[in-house]
Amino acid sequence: MLARQLLLGAGCSLRRFSSASRGAVVASTMQAIRAGEEDVRQRLAQINEEVQKLLALKEQLKQLTVDDDGSGETAAATPAPGKPAAASEPGNRNLSLKTPKGTRDYGPEAMALRQRVLDQVVRVFRRHGAETIDTPVFELKEVLTGKYGEDSKLIYDLKDQGGEILALRYDLTVPFARYVGMGNVFNIKRYHIAKVYRRDNPQITRGRYREFYQCDFDIAGTYDPMLPDAECVKVVCEILAEVGVGDFVVKLNHRKLLDGIFEACGVPADKFRTACSSVDKLDKTPWEEVRREMVEEKGLSEEAVGRIGQFVTLHGGTELIERLAADETLRGIKVAMEGLEDMRLLLQYCEIFQVADRVSFDLSLARGLDYYTGVIYEAVLLGGGGAGGGSSADEEITVGSVAGGGRYDNLVGMFNPKRKQVPCVGVSIGVERLFSILEARAGGKTRTNETEVYVASAHKGLHLKRLEILNKLWSAGLKAEHSYKLNPKLLAQLQHCEEYQIPYAVILGDGELSRGVVKLREIATRKEEEVALDTFIEELRRRLLSAA
Amino acid sequence: MLARQLLLGAGCSLRRFSSASRGAVVASTMQAIRAGEEDVRQRLAQINEEVQKLLALKEQLKQLTVDDDGSGETAAATPAPGKPAAASEPGNRNLSLKTPKGTRDYGPEAMALRQRVLDQVVRVFRRHGAETIDTPVFELKEVLTGKYGEDSKLIYDLKDQGGEILALRYDLTVPFARYVGMGNVFNIKRYHIAKVYRRDNPQITRGRYREFYQCDFDIAGTYDPMLPDAECVKVVCEILAEVGVGDFVVKLNHRKLLDGIFEACGVPADKFRTACSSVDKLDKTPWEEVRREMVEEKGLSEEAVGRIGQFVTLHGGTELIERLAADETLRGIKVAMEGLEDMRLLLQYCEIFQVADRVSFDLSLARGLDYYTGVIYEAVLLGGGGAGGGSSADEEITVGSVAGGGRYDNLVGMFNPKRKQVPCVGVSIGVERLFSILEARAGGKTRTNETEVYVASAHKGLHLKRLEILNKLWSAGLKAEHSYKLNPKLLAQLQHCEEYQIPYAVILGDGELSRGVVKLREIATRKEEEVALDTFIEELRRRLLSAA
Repeated sequence: MLARQLLLGAGCSLRRFSSASRGAVVASTMQAIRAGEEDVRQRLAQINEEVQKLLALKEQLKQLTVDDDGSGETAAATPAPGKPAAASEPGNRNLSLKTPKGTRDYGPEAMALRQRVLDQVVRVFRRHGAETIDTPVFELKEVLTGKYGEDSKLIYDLKDQGGEILALRYDLTVPFARYVGMGNVFNIKRYHIAKVYRRDNPQITRGRYREFYQCDFDIAGTYDPMLPDAECVKVVCEILAEVGVGDFVVKLNHRKLLDGIFEACGVPADKFRTACSSVDKLDKTPWEEVRREMVEEKGLSEEAVGRIGQFVTLHGGTELIERLAADETLRGIKVAMEGLEDMRLLLQYCEIFQVADRVSFDLSLARGLDYYTGVIYEAVLLGGGGAGGGSSADEEITVGSVAGGGRYDNLVGMFNPKRKQVPCVGVSIGVERLFSILEARAGGKTRTNETEVYVASAHKGLHLKRLEILNKLWSAGLKAEHSYKLNPKLLAQLQHCEEYQIPYAVILGDGELSRGVVKLREIATRKEEEVALDTFIEELRRRLLSAA
Repeated sequence: MLARQLLLGAGCSLRRFSSASRGAVVASTMQAIRAGEEDVRQRLAQINEEVQKLLALKEQLKQLTVDDDGSGETAAATPAPGKPAAASEPGNRNLSLKTPKGTRDYGPEAMALRQRVLDQVVRVFRRHGAETIDTPVFELKEVLTGKYGEDSKLIYDLKDQGGEILALRYDLTVPFARYVGMGNVFNIKRYHIAKVYRRDNPQITRGRYREFYQCDFDIAGTYDPMLPDAECVKVVCEILAEVGVGDFVVKLNHRKLLDGIFEACGVPADKFRTACSSVDKLDKTPWEEVRREMVEEKGLSEEAVGRIGQFVTLHGGTELIERLAADETLRGIKVAMEGLEDMRLLLQYCEIFQVADRVSFDLSLARGLDYYTGVIYEAVLLGGGGAGGGSSADEEITVGSVAGGGRYDNLVGMFNPKRKQVPCVGVSIGVERLFSILEARAGGKTRTNETEVYVASAHKGLHLKRLEILNKLWSAGLKAEHSYKLNPKLLAQLQHCEEYQIPYAVILGDGELSRGVVKLREIATRKEEEVALDTFIEELRRRLLSAA
């Protein structure tokens, strides 16, 4: 009750003295909070004590009932602390048969598709000379703290089991920055493909899960302006083209330019970030609504917001850079001019990399994360146009972001013992989006294994011969399987081949074997041919090579 | 207070009536527990309410102090709920610079080696027609409960954040069984390579971590005896031979035979598993000590243990099977004969698969896990002998287990809605051991990227030309990089090539460019040659192909 009185008292003080000495109000409020906290602590301790007693009672109850009928059934229904219910006992039939909320298993078909896409992505990363690293799936909680703004509540915490306070990684950028800072790495170009975890509201139908892959490419090091930044754009373009998800555009912008625009429009410096996060909504929200938010919720002046609106609706190419460089209000603002200078270089390099037709300098691009300090990117697919569509970006409907990133020059220093900064720039490929798109498009069956030849028997009693042939095929490096039944039906074996799209079957039969031959069947055409037992491997290899 | 009175009351009842009607005591105890729980719930709700008020007060306090000095410093010192302390602020200097206990980062060199080994392992799995699947990194806690015996305490729990009770996976076998059972899968041959988590005492120097890879190959389905089982042995032999870790032996045994032996020696049925776990120690502990444990700690009779000792020290091949089949004490025991029959088939199949010289039927092999029901395997490396050593297993010193597994026919049913069993057999490759061995052996530098050509400039002012050449190389599918500095020193560029073992450099210079040529330098030999600008890509490709 103490806490409640203090709380009421403190509440009164706040109202009563708000116009009087603030110091006194603050002091009494803090005192009330401290007392309230102490009270809550005491009461929690009491409750804890009673819970312990309840648990002890339950333990007694369990003993009582176990002794009673010897089956331990009641015990299983209320497991004692520390001793888990025996799920392995046939009596326990209440096991939940599901994966945790927002997660799923990936069966062979899904995995085959994912593997194929990831292989394509990695091929591009490696073509650009990237190495790979790996970091633990969990980090000390404090490493993640303060990096994700409001989204920090989505972090999965581990239970404190008497050790460190740990949490599952939320992205790959912060672990990368920790790796670079902690390891005194001064330059590295790395990719990292791994799962990250967010306790978001899963949207299963839209393919949004709580456990999902990220696929990052970053260049850390002190280099000359825009050389690594342009290569990131090139990497994104190569990946999206190779994976083949249709037409896309890579939107480009610059945080310094955005800051410069806010400054020019009269936004106070401490509201740059919040203004930025409003602008970030422009890809999904009409300007009118963003405008309202900036004025009504974020407290920016009508006039400032109006001026911002004139800028952030612009997009284009080099001509836009020239226009902004000549802009009266921006010309005097140093950061704006620095940002424009970077953009000018970036577009020049994109031209040389032959991706100028893929990029769009877009002032509405802001990106949600706080840590960006320079160039920012976002690749979006353009609906309708299809792979070869020649129509301009304006006419297309955006179907969503498939890659994003930017420059973050001040993150690594947080993790370096001497606070040394290592400038970084990178992109994250939205592979989950790519998987979904390709999955929806696949339609037909994807091959899930790579078996080249199936060893079948035409009749009973051939399993030892099958094993011998199999062993020869494996020794020759061919991918081969057979039925694990002693005497499988020929039809069942051939059906297996068709189902798994295995290109060839070697069919054994006593008649053929006595003549020193086997039947080689091409599954797709169902054509069969006799081949000598001592040359069929060469023949198979030849056929497989010419088909590849 | 109600709860406390009831608790005391119930406590009394238990003592007073323990010899009287049990039903009444149970009923009153359960009532007391329910009432106590209700009381605790109510009090927690009250506390929650007060905590909300405290939080509101803190929010007010924050506003007050922010308004006061405008810096928000006090607010930062007591972060509001949902808004974490800003670790990104330079003031926060107490961040721990480390990975969680028992975990580590893997830099480019470690990863390159791991990737190489995993590629080799996957190649073997795929040669045997395996598909791959993936499951979430965490499972509902109850899925893992009761599967790992005493080791359950090593499971990493997640914090209950108002949802399900989750834990990180401890191995890949239980998630696989859940996948098969839950999905009504009736046959699958799959591999799964993923990290698992155990809060064990890490032994960093011995390469034992809390986060580590498992690499499993399993065959699920109702098949004829020993056909899938023999293929698992073959897979292990192929992997160990291909990875190249020297001489090894795959020990084989059978749980049914072990049970039969225990029965024949007079061990009571309920002590089979505990006897098994003693026998399991024989690879590290002398028989005398295991004997003592069985007698003194596990309460088996001296005589029974003596007879067990005569069996479990035996190992050999087919001749041992015949000897045991003829054994007076075993002959009458059904499970023993079934186990021997399986072993006879397994050794026959191993002969055909040409791995008979790699396997040893070893009665001391028991394996720790409870769920095995048939054949069990364990591959151990033999020290001293080296890859080609011809000496027998007896003379060699065992340097540790690198693969293990067995048949588990009763695990999947636990996860099937209708309790349908799907028999399984599988092996787990100890890739972390393999990594350590190969890492120690590597000595020299491993390549960490795959760059084929580095585009260098001989003097200032060539960065645009470099980008142009790079773009051509990438378009041609070659792996190429350059310095991200505008005017790097030639020496630094060539040193980079040597450090990263990049085979070729293309060196640009105004003189050469004006003549339409570039210098092509072979890094290893430092030989340089002029090549025409419009054919150098073909020339490079030719050279790279002939080197491969």
